[in-house]
Amino acid sequence: MEPNANNNMHPDNCLGITPMEVHKVVPPPHRSTIQKLKSKLKETFFPDDPLLQFKRQPLGKKWILAAQYVFPILQWGPNYSFKLFKSDIVSGLTIASLAIPQGISYAKLASLPPIVGLYSSFVPPLVYAVLGSSRDLAVGPVSIASLILGSMLRQKVSPINDPLLFLQLAFSSTFFAGLFQASLGLLRLGFIIDFLSKAILIGFMAGAAVIVSLQQLKSLLGITHFTKQMGLVPVLSSAFHNINEWSWQTILMGFCFLVFLLLARHVSMRKPKLFWVSAGAPLLSVILSTILVFAFKAQHHGISVIGKLQEGLNPPSWNMLHFHGSNLGLVIKTGLVTGIISLTEGIAVGRTFAALKNYQVDGNKEMMAIGLMNVIGSATSCYVTTGAFSRSAVNHNAGAKTAVSNVVMSVTVMVTLLFLMPLFQYTPNVVLGAIIVTAVIGLIDFPAACQIWKIDKFDFVVMLCAFFGVVFISVQDGLAIAVAISIFKILLQVTRPKTLVLGNIPGTDIFRNLHHYKDATRIPGFLILSIEAPINFANTTYLKERILRWINEYETEEDIKKQSNIHFLILDLSAVSAIDTSGVSLFKDLKKAVENKGVELVLVNPVGEVLEKLLRADDAHDIMGPDTLYLTVGEAVAALSSTMKGQSSSYV
Amino acid sequence: MEPNANNNMHPDNCLGITPMEVHKVVPPPHRSTIQKLKSKLKETFFPDDPLLQFKRQPLGKKWILAAQYVFPILQWGPNYSFKLFKSDIVSGLTIASLAIPQGISYAKLASLPPIVGLYSSFVPPLVYAVLGSSRDLAVGPVSIASLILGSMLRQKVSPINDPLLFLQLAFSSTFFAGLFQASLGLLRLGFIIDFLSKAILIGFMAGAAVIVSLQQLKSLLGITHFTKQMGLVPVLSSAFHNINEWSWQTILMGFCFLVFLLLARHVSMRKPKLFWVSAGAPLLSVILSTILVFAFKAQHHGISVIGKLQEGLNPPSWNMLHFHGSNLGLVIKTGLVTGIISLTEGIAVGRTFAALKNYQVDGNKEMMAIGLMNVIGSATSCYVTTGAFSRSAVNHNAGAKTAVSNVVMSVTVMVTLLFLMPLFQYTPNVVLGAIIVTAVIGLIDFPAACQIWKIDKFDFVVMLCAFFGVVFISVQDGLAIAVAISIFKILLQVTRPKTLVLGNIPGTDIFRNLHHYKDATRIPGFLILSIEAPINFANTTYLKERILRWINEYETEEDIKKQSNIHFLILDLSAVSAIDTSGVSLFKDLKKAVENKGVELVLVNPVGEVLEKLLRADDAHDIMGPDTLYLTVGEAVAALSSTMKGQSSSYV
Repeated sequence: MEPNANNNMHPDNCLGITPMEVHKVVPPPHRSTIQKLKSKLKETFFPDDPLLQFKRQPLGKKWILAAQYVFPILQWGPNYSFKLFKSDIVSGLTIASLAIPQGISYAKLASLPPIVGLYSSFVPPLVYAVLGSSRDLAVGPVSIASLILGSMLRQKVSPINDPLLFLQLAFSSTFFAGLFQASLGLLRLGFIIDFLSKAILIGFMAGAAVIVSLQQLKSLLGITHFTKQMGLVPVLSSAFHNINEWSWQTILMGFCFLVFLLLARHVSMRKPKLFWVSAGAPLLSVILSTILVFAFKAQHHGISVIGKLQEGLNPPSWNMLHFHGSNLGLVIKTGLVTGIISLTEGIAVGRTFAALKNYQVDGNKEMMAIGLMNVIGSATSCYVTTGAFSRSAVNHNAGAKTAVSNVVMSVTVMVTLLFLMPLFQYTPNVVLGAIIVTAVIGLIDFPAACQIWKIDKFDFVVMLCAFFGVVFISVQDGLAIAVAISIFKILLQVTRPKTLVLGNIPGTDIFRNLHHYKDATRIPGFLILSIEAPINFANTTYLKERILRWINEYETEEDIKKQSNIHFLILDLSAVSAIDTSGVSLFKDLKKAVENKGVELVLVNPVGEVLEKLLRADDAHDIMGPDTLYLTVGEAVAALSSTMKGQSSSYV
Repeated sequence: MEPNANNNMHPDNCLGITPMEVHKVVPPPHRSTIQKLKSKLKETFFPDDPLLQFKRQPLGKKWILAAQYVFPILQWGPNYSFKLFKSDIVSGLTIASLAIPQGISYAKLASLPPIVGLYSSFVPPLVYAVLGSSRDLAVGPVSIASLILGSMLRQKVSPINDPLLFLQLAFSSTFFAGLFQASLGLLRLGFIIDFLSKAILIGFMAGAAVIVSLQQLKSLLGITHFTKQMGLVPVLSSAFHNINEWSWQTILMGFCFLVFLLLARHVSMRKPKLFWVSAGAPLLSVILSTILVFAFKAQHHGISVIGKLQEGLNPPSWNMLHFHGSNLGLVIKTGLVTGIISLTEGIAVGRTFAALKNYQVDGNKEMMAIGLMNVIGSATSCYVTTGAFSRSAVNHNAGAKTAVSNVVMSVTVMVTLLFLMPLFQYTPNVVLGAIIVTAVIGLIDFPAACQIWKIDKFDFVVMLCAFFGVVFISVQDGLAIAVAISIFKILLQVTRPKTLVLGNIPGTDIFRNLHHYKDATRIPGFLILSIEAPINFANTTYLKERILRWINEYETEEDIKKQSNIHFLILDLSAVSAIDTSGVSLFKDLKKAVENKGVELVLVNPVGEVLEKLLRADDAHDIMGPDTLYLTVGEAVAALSSTMKGQSSSYV
């Protein structure tokens, strides 16, 4: 090495770092194990610090804040004005016109009596209005949760042969879904739904949309004997094997209304101001088709109708809940899956509109609200409900200001339940099918899929797995596969952390990745690596092998070796956020291994916890002596190259 | 803000960074998706770059290197000398004297005929000598794998009522264990065994030692009716409920030999040069006890003996392997569990002694060697074998130089099998029990447990879970629980990444954690955060909440706010090694959220992949404009505080 290498490296080294005057790495301030545990638990479960607002408040104020925390209605209720109510009543009536036909349709999707869909649009919105913190969420049954609930329960119980048991299991599943949702919120485990990433959800929703649409072939084609399976292959083969059952009247009617609904949707998408076109179209279709059937007595010409519906409000159903017996496992499993899916939808919808209007939605609080809504729902003849994306969007566009729009919707549904049920007697099933297809088509998000392809190929693969898993295997398995792949990716990132070779950007003491910044240069005699992950049992073996390979490669690259042998291995630990016992022994092993090659191991900037553990393990001060621990790479290089210079001048 | 704040901050800013002259963040050199995929696959599966040595070699040399790669014996064989052989013969005979009694004992632990233990000490060492790359590994049956094999198979088949089927299942399990091990090596998935961390292994081995020792109560107390369960509670209750079966002669004999063996072990541990004391003690015990039994006809006085053993070498057993039938699932599961456990032991032992003697052991190659050894073993009446820790230590201490010591041991076992089998007829089972107890006591590593407690409390909890899981539930479940907790910890670290608040270390442009370096100071108007994990679907929600909370806290800390409102949020992304689509949208959301508070979002040093993805997503250049992307925190602060100064001077 040239004797003036150090000066070459730092042509304008006047930062106050002369080679001998370096900044010390100090251990972080002492905290006891209890303190550490406490702060870790706080960061894990209370990242939003919900108690912050209670600090430094008088006791009375604290009680008021607590009540407002549990019942957000107390926050906005006192300031509610007639002006807000005018907006809410318009939006409430709009979503009611959507909620009534969708409620009936989704209940049929879940193989439940159509009236349960209306029951579920009456009680839950009232509960949510009191407990929920989103101002735009329109609450009620949704397509995907209905699909999953129906398909999981149908595996064991037939809704045709044993309708009462099926209904009981549906309510019980709803109870467990609500219990699970509320517990997630209460135990502040909301991060579990974060594992359903955006990519997974896009693939999953598109797959579910396909599955739901295929199910509608039954009513759209007028088939009476239809498969009970959900997959693409059995449904299509069932539809084409029963070609003799196809009814041209049904197909014609379905086609006309489907075109009408899709056109209405198209108009509203082009001009968001015309949101009422797509919002009103389903109800209009129901009314029109019912009149048509009634006028032409079409029910006698191959068009199946809903039939007589019972009038009256929700009967109590707590005596129908199953807490033991042979179906308990099925009910709990169904509750878990539908609970997590509907929670994800509800929270995502709430967050989307909160971000648009710039207010905060507290995830854990929302979980408790949605959970309680389902628990209460399960006792009042409702099945799983959550915030629906399409209806919430209409609610938002119609100018909803508070959760009062949900109350307005609920009252409208109540009026329907009390007085208007006989009108639905002649509503044809084919129109309900068309309404469902139009609603779920919106779940297929091509632009988002393209964006994912553009940004991250791996996420795209995950998305495809979710989509094809749902379409070809089953809704739950598709979801499970996609989540497993996503978690595997995280584990792979931890198992195979990146090690970057750093070089000096000339004229500075900045060190950056040699393979990224082409003007960065190696410093003769130094191999500088940055480790970009926590060091733990899962990656110590890899890291040791990889670091030794970097040294080998350095030594075989001849143009580098010409300049100087490697004297120092500098590990920049700035990005190592945590370490465990295996990680600590990595440094001991590594030190021994590189010393055999005549290389000295130098550590730079271990952060708090990492430094602490290294110090505790390093009784003999053999890893971290005064010459092997520096605060910055620049200081380490400056200090060490002067000793190297000193050595070479004394040896040469 | 004071107009000269910028000068205050950088009293000696002469690095060439005037506020307007900053270093650009450039995108990394372009690589196609295929290139990226290729390099990612290489880093994941070939971190040691096994093909490096083949580069720039003539074809003939390449063939030789390839043959040497597959058969390491070709590497060291040609240089083998008589001097090495002298060392190997001593160590080989030493480990043989240990292997014969241990082989018989461990086969009994697995409920197999004692002779299978000797068969397993004959063929596998020969195979390993050809394929293995460790010079110290002593191959043969080991206690933990024997315990697991026996206990898993006994759940379905009784070794007493159906000994032939039991033997067939044991060989089949061995086949699948070997197949699994070899595939892991071939597919370069060796990192799977890394998930058994050191902490897990210490807890697991201690638990297994307790379980194995408890099993020996049967032979040590001379009980004939003993439970088939493994847990602490059923075994102890079985031992004390059959108190009438206890035989004082057996207990006396067992006690004497146990004391003798433990003393011998103690001597060797105190003075490693006397390794032959503990190495020879088991064989001496067997000989002594056999003579005693023969002399006193003790087999008629309540001391149970091994009985007649068949002479002759391993019979073939490939016709006994089960590849179908009702037990296939059990056999595959047993193979998987014993395979992974014995692989972990073998690799760990190989690496330990390789590190001591400073040579390399290639994990994936070792897996193939151990796997093939078991596949061949399963066809020649051997059950699961691997490198045993205790015997390898003796081998190392006895001066083994190459795998020839395994060949010497194998030949010794062969001689025993051919000529010496009748001598074991009167060997009492109680001595075998004492030998097992002495061997497994070495698996309990108190000092390592203390060290783990000192360094990492969480690892200690994982260790305890493994220990108590093994002792009270079952060997497999204990292991599974501990692995699940460890993986959960990794996921938690990713789900709840650290965000550090950085401050400036006065007189430098170094920025470090404010809560660690007490002399670091906040820069008025700036909130500087460093994110310490990849940003992905699992943590975007948390990160957004947490960063917004940092801003809130900043604004409520009055002594800071007095100085200046927050103008810039600087995110140092140096430690963010990867990002996905959810992560990309975090920045868009965050920008919007902080802009509403009048704060500008500034990014610092996104590394290769992260920068690339952000650029691809940021069509509108709204995240990363020229004033919102810097190479270092220092440059960002310098440049931005000058604009802030400019603003305030023009506004004030």
